[in-house]
Amino acid sequence: MSRSDLSRTACTVARTIEIVGDVWALMVLREMFLGTRRFDDLQHHTGASPHLLSRRLKRFEAEGIAKRRLYSEHPPRHEYRLTAKGRDLWPVIIALKGWGDQWLDRAEPLPVSLRHTRCGQTTQPVFVCSACGDPIDATTAQAYLSDDIIRAREINKRTLSGGRSARPNHTG
Amino acid sequence: MSRSDLSRTACTVARTIEIVGDVWALMVLREMFLGTRRFDDLQHHTGASPHLLSRRLKRFEAEGIAKRRLYSEHPPRHEYRLTAKGRDLWPVIIALKGWGDQWLDRAEPLPVSLRHTRCGQTTQPVFVCSACGDPIDATTAQAYLSDDIIRAREINKRTLSGGRSARPNHTG
Repeated sequence: MSRSDLSRTACTVARTIEIVGDVWALMVLREMFLGTRRFDDLQHHTGASPHLLSRRLKRFEAEGIAKRRLYSEHPPRHEYRLTAKGRDLWPVIIALKGWGDQWLDRAEPLPVSLRHTRCGQTTQPVFVCSACGDPIDATTAQAYLSDDIIRAREINKRTLSGGRSARPNHTG
Repeated sequence: MSRSDLSRTACTVARTIEIVGDVWALMVLREMFLGTRRFDDLQHHTGASPHLLSRRLKRFEAEGIAKRRLYSEHPPRHEYRLTAKGRDLWPVIIALKGWGDQWLDRAEPLPVSLRHTRCGQTTQPVFVCSACGDPIDATTAQAYLSDDIIRAREINKRTLSGGRSARPNHTG
């Protein structure tokens, strides 16, 4: 399966990964959530090359994640803002941040801290169950695959097993 | 800035992205959260090439995200399990899934549904504020940068502005 095949799978995780699951897309998202809008500023603060940044922003526009707006006519200059669809990717960045804050060596205080504007307090967002409201994590959640997904995974497995050596040497 | 420079920034989001922020690392994580442990099965269900998969698993081991365990001596075969550090990446995959389920065209029922084992109900995890327990999203959270990060961003911006044309043509 190539990366582009991911967009045709039924799995919404795989399809989302295909759209935003790369270093530069995620770095651009992080930066846009910090309020950065202009191409040059996005470039400076993500470290992406102009070419990579331009490609990611075009993809974001095509996917309806960001909108381009002219802010200067002479010379023509654009800024990029997240749409509602784009803002809904916030949990992805916050989940990455939560893990990094927890597991990576870092300075005190946190490099980026969050405040919940509704209650005014410093916050570290946590996932809770939508049904009971209690915290939920990998150890207290069970995944169930739909019949369609189970079928697709079986076909995929058969296709790949037939198409190449079933057990490459270096798998140990 | 190259991708490898991300590991040296103080920003925990950027450093986490450098570790797991690519298509195949995320696909392997998705698959491991579905309980898949063996190299061949991981390969079949992610579509990653043996080379890419092998590199991601080695990185996961080096980062303490996954552990390799011998499950057959003749021939030698290994399986890979997430550590506690790896299991803590669950919110990243669930955040990607939440967005895909919400915004991408998909079949009913959900391709992958989740059950909270504590309460027994179907669930779609939501982020809440750790301080007040209310839902939190991009519109109700404000980010504050530490002094260290603000300084690093200013240096970074000056360095990059000096190092290349300040405004590439195609930024439009």
